[in-house]
Amino acid sequence: MNKITILIHCNDLSGIVASVTNFIAEKQGNIIYLDQHVDREQDIFFMRLESEFIENNFSTEDFKDSFKTSLADKFEMKWRIYSSENKPKMALFVSKYDHCLYDLLGRYNSGELNLKIPFIISNHNNLKPIADNFNIPFYHIPVTKDTKAEAEEQQLKLLKSHKIDFIVLARYMQIISGKLINKYPNKIINIHHSFLPAFVGAKPYHSAYKRGVKIIGATSHYVTEELDAGPIIEQDVAHVSHTYTIESLIAKGRDLEKIVLANAIKLHSNRKVMVFNNKTVVFS
Amino acid sequence: MNKITILIHCNDLSGIVASVTNFIAEKQGNIIYLDQHVDREQDIFFMRLESEFIENNFSTEDFKDSFKTSLADKFEMKWRIYSSENKPKMALFVSKYDHCLYDLLGRYNSGELNLKIPFIISNHNNLKPIADNFNIPFYHIPVTKDTKAEAEEQQLKLLKSHKIDFIVLARYMQIISGKLINKYPNKIINIHHSFLPAFVGAKPYHSAYKRGVKIIGATSHYVTEELDAGPIIEQDVAHVSHTYTIESLIAKGRDLEKIVLANAIKLHSNRKVMVFNNKTVVFS
Amino acid sequence: MNKITILIHCNDLSGIVASVTNFIAEKQGNIIYLDQHVDREQDIFFMRLESEFIENNFSTEDFKDSFKTSLADKFEMKWRIYSSENKPKMALFVSKYDHCLYDLLGRYNSGELNLKIPFIISNHNNLKPIADNFNIPFYHIPVTKDTKAEAEEQQLKLLKSHKIDFIVLARYMQIISGKLINKYPNKIINIHHSFLPAFVGAKPYHSAYKRGVKIIGATSHYVTEELDAGPIIEQDVAHVSHTYTIESLIAKGRDLEKIVLANAIKLHSNRKVMVFNNKTVVFS
Amino acid sequence: MNKITILIHCNDLSGIVASVTNFIAEKQGNIIYLDQHVDREQDIFFMRLESEFIENNFSTEDFKDSFKTSLADKFEMKWRIYSSENKPKMALFVSKYDHCLYDLLGRYNSGELNLKIPFIISNHNNLKPIADNFNIPFYHIPVTKDTKAEAEEQQLKLLKSHKIDFIVLARYMQIISGKLINKYPNKIINIHHSFLPAFVGAKPYHSAYKRGVKIIGATSHYVTEELDAGPIIEQDVAHVSHTYTIESLIAKGRDLEKIVLANAIKLHSNRKVMVFNNKTVVFS
Repeated sequence: MNKITILIHCNDLSGIVASVTNFIAEKQGNIIYLDQHVDREQDIFFMRLESEFIENNFSTEDFKDSFKTSLADKFEMKWRIYSSENKPKMALFVSKYDHCLYDLLGRYNSGELNLKIPFIISNHNNLKPIADNFNIPFYHIPVTKDTKAEAEEQQLKLLKSHKIDFIVLARYMQIISGKLINKYPNKIINIHHSFLPAFVGAKPYHSAYKRGVKIIGATSHYVTEELDAGPIIEQDVAHVSHTYTIESLIAKGRDLEKIVLANAIKLHSNRKVMVFNNKTVVFS
Repeated sequence: MNKITILIHCNDLSGIVASVTNFIAEKQGNIIYLDQHVDREQDIFFMRLESEFIENNFSTEDFKDSFKTSLADKFEMKWRIYSSENKPKMALFVSKYDHCLYDLLGRYNSGELNLKIPFIISNHNNLKPIADNFNIPFYHIPVTKDTKAEAEEQQLKLLKSHKIDFIVLARYMQIISGKLINKYPNKIINIHHSFLPAFVGAKPYHSAYKRGVKIIGATSHYVTEELDAGPIIEQDVAHVSHTYTIESLIAKGRDLEKIVLANAIKLHSNRKVMVFNNKTVVFS
Repeated sequence: MNKITILIHCNDLSGIVASVTNFIAEKQGNIIYLDQHVDREQDIFFMRLESEFIENNFSTEDFKDSFKTSLADKFEMKWRIYSSENKPKMALFVSKYDHCLYDLLGRYNSGELNLKIPFIISNHNNLKPIADNFNIPFYHIPVTKDTKAEAEEQQLKLLKSHKIDFIVLARYMQIISGKLINKYPNKIINIHHSFLPAFVGAKPYHSAYKRGVKIIGATSHYVTEELDAGPIIEQDVAHVSHTYTIESLIAKGRDLEKIVLANAIKLHSNRKVMVFNNKTVVFS
Repeated sequence: MNKITILIHCNDLSGIVASVTNFIAEKQGNIIYLDQHVDREQDIFFMRLESEFIENNFSTEDFKDSFKTSLADKFEMKWRIYSSENKPKMALFVSKYDHCLYDLLGRYNSGELNLKIPFIISNHNNLKPIADNFNIPFYHIPVTKDTKAEAEEQQLKLLKSHKIDFIVLARYMQIISGKLINKYPNKIINIHHSFLPAFVGAKPYHSAYKRGVKIIGATSHYVTEELDAGPIIEQDVAHVSHTYTIESLIAKGRDLEKIVLANAIKLHSNRKVMVFNNKTVVFS
């Protein structure tokens, strides 16, 4: 059984859904998921479709070629087609905080995540024992002001040689350069420990404490060159009160960060997220 | 501009989506919403579609006829087609509690609800002044053990003469007979003041207090002959603590009841709910 | 039965709780609620206490005098003592939006609110029929750039003559002057339709739509001279998605605004909120 | 600096708070936390107090003796006093599910939990590698119908020899006998994968799927002899929809189970939970 996922966006024209579903029918595919969205302001059509093909000699590459010439060119679509056989490869960037790392590796080991983790990169050595426990290669690449460019070269080399599909900054605490971002556009996922756009930048829990908010949040977003301003994938919040100190806000926030980041990773790796105009369409 | 909404369910066969979307394309419709769901356990296909037709002489009745012969019969569909011109007519049944009534009439007056309220029925006279303030006809139909059948006859007469589409029990506090239920299958919406299936029946807040739960809930569901066991449309919950008395649970619960019932009414009147096998499919 | 509520804050010294509870015991009071909080950063002690006094000739004024000389002066307390007999008087300021008004008057009529509403003030005449339905005096005081000072004089006169205790801006949409704010410090409650400090100022739902947030919020706070920057009393949020238009964000937000404002009013009128250093302590 | 926590409950009499706080003041203690609750139905007074003592030769044992004779006997209190020096010892019981285990051991290693885990017991060997990674002794004690009594003897021996304070069933999947429960009354914490009292017993996610609920939950409670009917410590819920299969309900539920169990463990180990009449008082 072959299963593919198709993601499309293009200008909204009538007849697109009929054309795509006819095409699948012709190829003897069985649609098992179809959702679409129209951004009425921009007149952009978005679609996500999953289809199964029973045929023995089904080829994803042939399907892609045919899709391109029969449909995509005609409607001037931006499109991506994924075979369910290929699990995406995720590189984990961490620093000194371990809670997201424990959470993600626990989920990974339990088989909850539909992806591969070829390696972990960190600018510090502190979390190496955890990587070792979970048998994931760990590369310690220190980053200082002076060595930042060089360090990114090392990172890029590792990312290329392992054919990494996307990067997750699990509280990595370093600013990523435009050079690296442009090589992985909408493929670098960050977890920010506030309810964006409130409390952009460093020490959001301190700012939340000072402002006396009654709810704290966490936000997972794609990294763009503007700090904490990329397309938001997932957010969640928790109620707090005057009894919380900065320390207890941080402790409460850790659980938010873990779950929001894990959910964003699941959505991305299951090809449920599309980006347009610095916003996401997140299919169910 | 004509706008219609189509709801379909049938056995899951390949080619349904293509057939329906082709049909819309042939009729020069522009699909503005399409979502589908497959119940894999029962192999049932569900679909909701909204389409606009620019044509001046578009007729919903002609469209229905054509849909039936071209599509519905072929796939053995259960289907409903609604024109956006027809606002559904909702009858409100109340008793002595006023919070849901105030909430719904406030929303109604603000233009938030896509429906008409031809009248309110109550077994008590207490809430008549509120109906008067909002200029809605109010029928006082007392119900006792002995007069129950007779009272329902009066209700039915009113429902028929006003061509009521669906009934909302806004804390009506009376059990509806099978006779009335069968005339309005999946068209009578109740609000139950607990997180069903916990605390079925009378005095759920008292039971919640006794059990010491840390969360209370409210559930809106279609009425079936089995008490509080019909298809669930919407649920919501709120956190509580040991400091709550039964009275403060009831007060907190009122806000849940109002919002859950209002949301269920919006979903139903916007034709977003399908029922199958005592469960709902609720489209976004 | 006499019931009083005491709110205290002062520098944190040992022995305060013992002194206060001894004082109550001497006066033959029965403590039915006591909660305290210490702000460790500022070394400030906060306390809320409810006590019942069975004595027939109990006098709140005598109690206050005795409290002041025996306790408050010694510990240099800021303190307030309220008798449960006196319901606070709340002035409602509205403009053209009716959802918070319907919600509050519905609750008021149901007896859910522990306060009196002597009148409603509005800069427009649109909502007068609602005030009339609920039999609340409605004063139409138009506000333009040129007449603003004069209009506030009229408002102040009404506020004084009715001995108003606190003011609620139920989507009033006008900036309150420093002069009025200073006459009602921490006694003017506003509802802002965003999750503050995100989206300060006008049109927060438009900004939320543009930023592509996955959660929207509402915030009730005391009005200070800095816009939307006063002490936060209550916040709540709701999940949204890419399918929401600005209009549907606004519709979803209305329910948040209603509940957050109603909760803030209940907390304030039940004397559960203390303000220090632009933050609130909100007792349960 | 010595810090102690006092938990008290007794019949509600006037003067208790004054007596206790005076007692602390006499011992030169500084109260850093005080909260109290009165169950008005049962007329029971509950209190939690934290106090610091600067004195060099402060003895918790002497304090307890003095507390007993001066206060506890007089008011016929049930009371417990804990020194912050003693971290409670928690035994973890697991079976084959690893998500709660990973979560708890990750938190434990990060220093988030104020307790010690001397060992893990399981009726299966599957999770031994995880225990090994985290360097926690793992005892495999198989349980069959015939060997159940014998297995519990082994468990009891381990519990006693390590002076275990409380037991956590992290998806242990076995019914605990009355004998063991009575040795650890209100000291065995279970996580049930439903919103109790809905879906008591086995396979709650299957029941939730069948009933078509729109919200699922998890409940942590103390184990009593009646199945899933003990005092509830903590509950949380998550919204679901018709698109969820049983498998995806289970996946979603895992995150609820992890967080609800972790929170219940924190509350218990920080001595914030009191039990009375099969309900909990959970202090903040």
